[in-house]
Amino acid sequence: MSKPPVSSVSIVRHGVNDAGDWNDLVVTEEPLEIRVGYGPREDREQMSLSVTMRTPGHDLELVAGFLFAEGIIDDPGQLHLLEHCQNAKSEDEQGNVVRAELSPEVELDRELLQRNSLASSSCGVCGKASIEALAHLQCGLIKERERPALDPEVVNDLPSRLRQAQTVFRHTGGIHATGLFDLEGNLLLMHEDVGRHNALDKVIGAKFLRGELPLSGMIGLCSGRLGFELVQKSLRAGLPILGAVGAPSSLAVETASQYGMTLLGFVREGRFNEYTGLDE
Amino acid sequence: MSKPPVSSVSIVRHGVNDAGDWNDLVVTEEPLEIRVGYGPREDREQMSLSVTMRTPGHDLELVAGFLFAEGIIDDPGQLHLLEHCQNAKSEDEQGNVVRAELSPEVELDRELLQRNSLASSSCGVCGKASIEALAHLQCGLIKERERPALDPEVVNDLPSRLRQAQTVFRHTGGIHATGLFDLEGNLLLMHEDVGRHNALDKVIGAKFLRGELPLSGMIGLCSGRLGFELVQKSLRAGLPILGAVGAPSSLAVETASQYGMTLLGFVREGRFNEYTGLDE
Repeated sequence: MSKPPVSSVSIVRHGVNDAGDWNDLVVTEEPLEIRVGYGPREDREQMSLSVTMRTPGHDLELVAGFLFAEGIIDDPGQLHLLEHCQNAKSEDEQGNVVRAELSPEVELDRELLQRNSLASSSCGVCGKASIEALAHLQCGLIKERERPALDPEVVNDLPSRLRQAQTVFRHTGGIHATGLFDLEGNLLLMHEDVGRHNALDKVIGAKFLRGELPLSGMIGLCSGRLGFELVQKSLRAGLPILGAVGAPSSLAVETASQYGMTLLGFVREGRFNEYTGLDE
Repeated sequence: MSKPPVSSVSIVRHGVNDAGDWNDLVVTEEPLEIRVGYGPREDREQMSLSVTMRTPGHDLELVAGFLFAEGIIDDPGQLHLLEHCQNAKSEDEQGNVVRAELSPEVELDRELLQRNSLASSSCGVCGKASIEALAHLQCGLIKERERPALDPEVVNDLPSRLRQAQTVFRHTGGIHATGLFDLEGNLLLMHEDVGRHNALDKVIGAKFLRGELPLSGMIGLCSGRLGFELVQKSLRAGLPILGAVGAPSSLAVETASQYGMTLLGFVREGRFNEYTGLDE
């Protein structure tokens, strides 16, 4: 069994009227190991692909989203099995290991995967090369698609709508979230996680498992800041508009700009910035 | 040459009086590849250990801190060479590759490292096992040492002192920082990075390279939230008090509690919580 997403802790409050000993809630963080089975039917191999620190809950969506975003699988049919490991050593551990059996034709580049990054798979080690590496993930789609028009009033409403849906945040004040909205600002899907990448992987994974990618005509909103990897994952899922309550990085801006994604930052308090490209 | 830590971007401002086209600054994010040379003198091997997305600047400190925190090296004498790669393909790439030559006696467990985690090196995959794995990193020290007394007035001053020192934050509003303070609240060292782990690695690496570990009698403050890995890195460096402007996770609280580290969260607006352990 997985642990609940919040845990109770003992604290001492300082500097407030009700200072002293209290119980409080914090977001649960536990390791999740992703084990994959791959290779031809007659010669299957198993490997531990990754261990990520995550908040328990929607683990299968997280793993599916991770495998898709990393370019390991392209459609849900390539997942022959996706489940929590039944023969882990202890009950605690059972909830923290997910096993994915990939269809025989899926090829895994062990060396590349273990080095833990797309960035190093590219022809060089610089922002430009990292962006170019996305082409291998079939991330060239948004450029050609008609960009949805942006309604500033809809955008300004997104953070409060996301916040209202965030049950774990309400209890702990310390968790990231990714929301998926339609162009009218209706919340379609929301996931929370202690890791910002995990929250996005859960959202993308949920849509992936339902066969509902690409995310055309939708807006994504992240609770934190926007780095390259969040843009990369969103591009892979075909999301045309990605916003965040916080600031974007240079590589996030440059990547979004090159792939035709609309990138929004500092979406809060009735205002936001639309990033249109890195100055030369 | 490495890029500067801030980059200029074109933006459209929405929802403000001065709406329209502007130039703005964002934090620079670029990949950094860590290459290590290791093995006996007569049979040296090279490997690409990791690629991390970071803000350029203090790359050598970042790499030293990473190698130390991961338990690969224990003292600065084990680094025979630490420099930006001179023979990378392009000038851009040169600034983004750091080469570390480890002394011959350092043993690297390739498989383990490539799986990218301490968590999976343990006897199981759960929070308890993750915490136990820290024992292998010689993280048992703080329990035995006298804990410094906590002065709430000093703690309450730390966030503004950190913020004042943050030059990149002032320009971009989007970067993490870790500050190291003495018990009177004087700032000893501060580093900023787009990645919260990198900011801490830079601080620990700087002290490591100067031979100034463990960080006894010091207070660390992180700008964001506190997860397991930040506590792990801080314990490895012997830091007795770790605080954050944001919330801690369950595993951060549990780990700090077991190793005798004082963990502070929500350090802002003249108040903070001291976390004393996970409730059973």
